[in-house]
Amino acid sequence: LLTDYGYADEFAGVVRAVVRRHVPDAPIVDITHGVVPFDVRAGALALCRVVGHLGPGVVLGVVDPGVGTARRAIAATVRVGEDDRLPYAFVGPDNGLLPWAIDAVGGIAETVVLASGGGDGATFDGRDVFAPAAARLWEGAPLGDLGDPVEPADLVRLDPPRCDVVLGRLDAEVQWVDRFGNVQLAARADDARRAGFGDELDIEAVGRHRARRVHGFAELAPGALGVMLDANGHLALVCDRASAATLLGVGNGDVVAVRARAGVVS
Amino acid sequence: LLTDYGYADEFAGVVRAVVRRHVPDAPIVDITHGVVPFDVRAGALALCRVVGHLGPGVVLGVVDPGVGTARRAIAATVRVGEDDRLPYAFVGPDNGLLPWAIDAVGGIAETVVLASGGGDGATFDGRDVFAPAAARLWEGAPLGDLGDPVEPADLVRLDPPRCDVVLGRLDAEVQWVDRFGNVQLAARADDARRAGFGDELDIEAVGRHRARRVHGFAELAPGALGVMLDANGHLALVCDRASAATLLGVGNGDVVAVRARAGVVS
Amino acid sequence: LLTDYGYADEFAGVVRAVVRRHVPDAPIVDITHGVVPFDVRAGALALCRVVGHLGPGVVLGVVDPGVGTARRAIAATVRVGEDDRLPYAFVGPDNGLLPWAIDAVGGIAETVVLASGGGDGATFDGRDVFAPAAARLWEGAPLGDLGDPVEPADLVRLDPPRCDVVLGRLDAEVQWVDRFGNVQLAARADDARRAGFGDELDIEAVGRHRARRVHGFAELAPGALGVMLDANGHLALVCDRASAATLLGVGNGDVVAVRARAGVVS
Repeated sequence: LLTDYGYADEFAGVVRAVVRRHVPDAPIVDITHGVVPFDVRAGALALCRVVGHLGPGVVLGVVDPGVGTARRAIAATVRVGEDDRLPYAFVGPDNGLLPWAIDAVGGIAETVVLASGGGDGATFDGRDVFAPAAARLWEGAPLGDLGDPVEPADLVRLDPPRCDVVLGRLDAEVQWVDRFGNVQLAARADDARRAGFGDELDIEAVGRHRARRVHGFAELAPGALGVMLDANGHLALVCDRASAATLLGVGNGDVVAVRARAGVVS
Repeated sequence: LLTDYGYADEFAGVVRAVVRRHVPDAPIVDITHGVVPFDVRAGALALCRVVGHLGPGVVLGVVDPGVGTARRAIAATVRVGEDDRLPYAFVGPDNGLLPWAIDAVGGIAETVVLASGGGDGATFDGRDVFAPAAARLWEGAPLGDLGDPVEPADLVRLDPPRCDVVLGRLDAEVQWVDRFGNVQLAARADDARRAGFGDELDIEAVGRHRARRVHGFAELAPGALGVMLDANGHLALVCDRASAATLLGVGNGDVVAVRARAGVVS
Repeated sequence: LLTDYGYADEFAGVVRAVVRRHVPDAPIVDITHGVVPFDVRAGALALCRVVGHLGPGVVLGVVDPGVGTARRAIAATVRVGEDDRLPYAFVGPDNGLLPWAIDAVGGIAETVVLASGGGDGATFDGRDVFAPAAARLWEGAPLGDLGDPVEPADLVRLDPPRCDVVLGRLDAEVQWVDRFGNVQLAARADDARRAGFGDELDIEAVGRHRARRVHGFAELAPGALGVMLDANGHLALVCDRASAATLLGVGNGDVVAVRARAGVVS
């Protein structure tokens, strides 16, 4: 379960309850319900970071600004790879939330459109469509029993996170600001290598800041900014026990320029 | 589990731990712990919305401004109906939190007063009284083993949510403002029909606002207010990707007047 | 599980997922993920309050300002006592988070240092080190298989909470401010007895306040301050349905002086 339902209301609880009602002993793993409302992109990226650590099962994701619109409810199975310890099916809205995560564990095998409740008034798809579908898949129902097939290529996909690299410079989208204020960029070790970065860098965000390549928070003096390879393999802008996001004035979707300072390592 | 314990402290965790200690394989479903502290009414309404989606089991609810007072701890069983896939017992304080939800799934069969820990100092009833009682009921203990019987009619009950309907006008209590700012009223499709509402409405809250009957968020222009039948069958005041509660300046317990605008559909 | 991961990000979800991937039917109990970031002391105290209520199993705690530093990852078993319904092993950082809780259930039997992932970049120890270790212990792996032994006496320990008692006066650290604003002190009934306190007390915090010994919130008039023995056996400063912490202007780690007012009960 990954949703933007939050923790104050009973939304996530109802979805859990519906799954349990269908499959009493289902081992439900709550990934998070704290995705910013309607932020499909943030939800899709969080799902990508998590999916490789999930065991076999069904992933139910709901982050959805399109309630009550024409967007479809979908379920998809994963192309069988060498690793059968990964999730084998995904359920959620067809708004781009799921495809990146499915790609990360093998790619889409088959997709169906789930029949929606319909009727007058709003529907609570998480409760009425997605949870029952996830429960049926968990019980072993074939995907084809859940709805009509659609082409995987027809699914909605989000624009990939921006990451432009030239020698000495890298422009990358902020993918994630975590609870601690660490700023994850859409760039990996490889991008830094292609940019020929050394240890001294300039960061252009709202203002311009000096930063240093570090391998751990402890290398940073109070208030100093570091560029670190984070636990997801992404470049991250970090401070030691302080928020780099606040220091830089950036949030999800902003683009940050990282430049080599003392000359390029070619 | 539905409580006002919040997520920062370990309250809910301790209750979960105590249940698990008694019944290691109990499938615990957290409904929410985000009820506003002491807001018994909001907790009771949330429980009503959820209870029909729960599977067979024991519902433990704690929202309680009366810790350390004379209010009783109770457990109740549900009158056996045709549907044995619903909760069969409830545990919580006798302050009005539980009866509405029990009524919603069949009504109260029997009630007992739970023996409280007593002793000097405050008690943590969730941990020391409610969780062990819920665990024993889950294991199959008869209700009578948990305490002395009381008359169901003697339980504390809250005033029902206000909903007054005349032709062309409906005055209804705000029952719930969810994470997205949707404003659920204590009125249903039937009440709107009795008021003879058409598609054009006036909403009187802090100020006066125009609203339109809609069937989904997507029908609303940015900033526009809609009246929609929500996923719980209640009338709700909504905006598309914005907070209707903020627009209207209302919260739980406020009374909102909805009036027909362009003439009554008699 | 007790962490400072919060609820917005997927941190806690990933740790749960990794445990489940290793041990699909592990009954995971989330104690809380709401510990204030980096507040090891608050986490250690919360763990102490909870640990006696946990069933047999493995406690995984992560509150850690030392990510990426030289601090060690440890696992420890509990000295076997008469009570085999308590946790038997603990996993977490060697920064003082765990020892108090282990002491509370029997003391440390053996300790090992867990091999850390190493490699370039930051590690997510909760995901990569602690969760797999906890899963292996849960499956019955002997502690010695997880790393090299260290002396229990060599573990990092925090300074014990301050509590100084003289006749008529008690200076005690604020250990915990809960969601409701109740202020738990590092003092117990015994300390109040040694101080010879009667029912009338003065509280010196930011200002000076009168308080009364009470046995429940209901004994307090609106705005009045009480000193109560709380459900953990600690003295707590409380108001009825209001925040004593706000009234007093205190938070975790502040020291509060409690003085007898109307003369000492010798």
